[in-house]
Amino acid sequence: MEIVFLGTSSGVPTKTRNVSGIGFRQQNSKSWLLIDCGEGTQHRILHTNLSLTNLSAILITHVHGDHCYGLPGILASASMSGRNEPLTIIAPKPIQHFINAVIETSELNLNYQLNFIDVEKLTDSTSVGNIEIRAVLLSHRVPSFAYALTERPTKNRLDQEKLIKDGILRGPMWGKLQSGQSITLENGKVILPDNYLLPDKNNRTVIICGDNDDPHRLATLKSDTTFEANVELVVHEATYTQEVAEKVGAGPQHSCAKRISEYAESTGLKNLILTHFSPRYQDLPSPSPSIVDIEEEARRYYSGNLFLANDLDIFRLDKNGNLIHTKYNTGK
Amino acid sequence: MEIVFLGTSSGVPTKTRNVSGIGFRQQNSKSWLLIDCGEGTQHRILHTNLSLTNLSAILITHVHGDHCYGLPGILASASMSGRNEPLTIIAPKPIQHFINAVIETSELNLNYQLNFIDVEKLTDSTSVGNIEIRAVLLSHRVPSFAYALTERPTKNRLDQEKLIKDGILRGPMWGKLQSGQSITLENGKVILPDNYLLPDKNNRTVIICGDNDDPHRLATLKSDTTFEANVELVVHEATYTQEVAEKVGAGPQHSCAKRISEYAESTGLKNLILTHFSPRYQDLPSPSPSIVDIEEEARRYYSGNLFLANDLDIFRLDKNGNLIHTKYNTGK
Repeated sequence: MEIVFLGTSSGVPTKTRNVSGIGFRQQNSKSWLLIDCGEGTQHRILHTNLSLTNLSAILITHVHGDHCYGLPGILASASMSGRNEPLTIIAPKPIQHFINAVIETSELNLNYQLNFIDVEKLTDSTSVGNIEIRAVLLSHRVPSFAYALTERPTKNRLDQEKLIKDGILRGPMWGKLQSGQSITLENGKVILPDNYLLPDKNNRTVIICGDNDDPHRLATLKSDTTFEANVELVVHEATYTQEVAEKVGAGPQHSCAKRISEYAESTGLKNLILTHFSPRYQDLPSPSPSIVDIEEEARRYYSGNLFLANDLDIFRLDKNGNLIHTKYNTGK
Repeated sequence: MEIVFLGTSSGVPTKTRNVSGIGFRQQNSKSWLLIDCGEGTQHRILHTNLSLTNLSAILITHVHGDHCYGLPGILASASMSGRNEPLTIIAPKPIQHFINAVIETSELNLNYQLNFIDVEKLTDSTSVGNIEIRAVLLSHRVPSFAYALTERPTKNRLDQEKLIKDGILRGPMWGKLQSGQSITLENGKVILPDNYLLPDKNNRTVIICGDNDDPHRLATLKSDTTFEANVELVVHEATYTQEVAEKVGAGPQHSCAKRISEYAESTGLKNLILTHFSPRYQDLPSPSPSIVDIEEEARRYYSGNLFLANDLDIFRLDKNGNLIHTKYNTGK
């Protein structure tokens, strides 16, 4: 699984950080998902190997402009680039009103169909390609959601070891067993598939969160009995350090580094990526306040594998849940 | 007068060119106008010395997304950056519907007032700061306008030479004459202001055009008797070369380099800047098609002072109507 950061600033863009946008795909897959689409997301995409033609779905966490004002442009550009495959949009209902209003008022003609799915009406079986998508309501000034992206469980896996041990050698009969059919051996013995199928494997899950001042909201995903995947990675906002968050007050309903890091530590999370930094934080260690302040605060409370995202960072999650960090070369 | 190109691509952004946006200001003035606001215009502004606090007005030529989809973000960012002065928007009526729809559907709260002026209701006296603004309807798929920006005529200029010759020396009496009052000299002679006032001076005009397949539409500005300014510079689209324009067909209603250059030549225009290039044209001379093809075609038909705009180009028009080209240093 691969995650590409297209924007890591909160509210307004800076010279080095665009507003929110994250690309997600399974490794070696051309098709991908876009989570949030702040203004300028399509510009960042030009510096990656992601293409608007292969975009399967756009997931929006909430209706604030820094998470959705890139939608009109990206939809228009996909159409001008020749896309004609339908595009799924999963988002809070106001996003549908926003898109429809833009289409109506700006004479936007798309050469493809938009399939809108209200995030509050996702079912246990909602998936895009091989990715199952669940959502949980977070705590913010407007309804904001986290998306849990799970590899579709691998079903009907054959117990190859047992088959070989019992003298049923690799061949067309394996295929029949895997598809749930009984087979009859040469000696007349009937073999039922259930005896040679392993339990379904729950695959890796990544959770990408919208703006949120209460990380404990993610706990509801754990208590959801239909959802037993392995959460390998959480991407969450850390808009401020604790000190600044206290100065700003509770109004904006964002998290500070301490708040999300403490929660991640309490759940034993293996990998945490922080993003959505207030533009007051400089990239360089000085002058203060700096992104380094956010990182230091997070490390004080979280002992797992921690990253602070930069634009055009790529993170690859391998089969063992290890996170590998690389970066697009922007040619600068 | 100074013009800053914030975007020079048509339809979609490229790695080097954003979609349409132009900054305009009088030299040594902090306040400025923005003409068109494609997505990512606010990102480009970060690389200039223009500020959202000092932005006096936004003028939109037409409702196509590559000329207006940056509006929601720039309005939001201006508010988040602390702007509280009202902002004027001059645009076709659909832009007002677009902005209102975005504000309503995306919970955008601005800390300042928007004063919308329908471009079709501009009067002869419409001005922003010292700039008089006129508009003319062009020819495009949707109503598209050119904006003529004219320095406010300098009125009540004293004929200083004549005053000195007649023995009326510099002093408070000059101010009275200039404000239209009569004065009485020590010898009792009454001096009427009209004898010492020069005719109003018509100042420089720059015309910045929206998408347009018929440059002759600009001629109506010349026949408008209320409009006798000196047009020193026209900024016009040259989306294609003639060859490509013929392949594309008349549907998109854009100009090729030949069409606008021939027109500019026929009017004796001194300075012409071309922009809004189809993304098919590469920045480098090869492979073909290249921006150089557009430039060569334009030079075949226009013998005046010609430029093809690049993003972050600055053009300064001096008092004698000479155009000086510089560029922002983006630190790359």
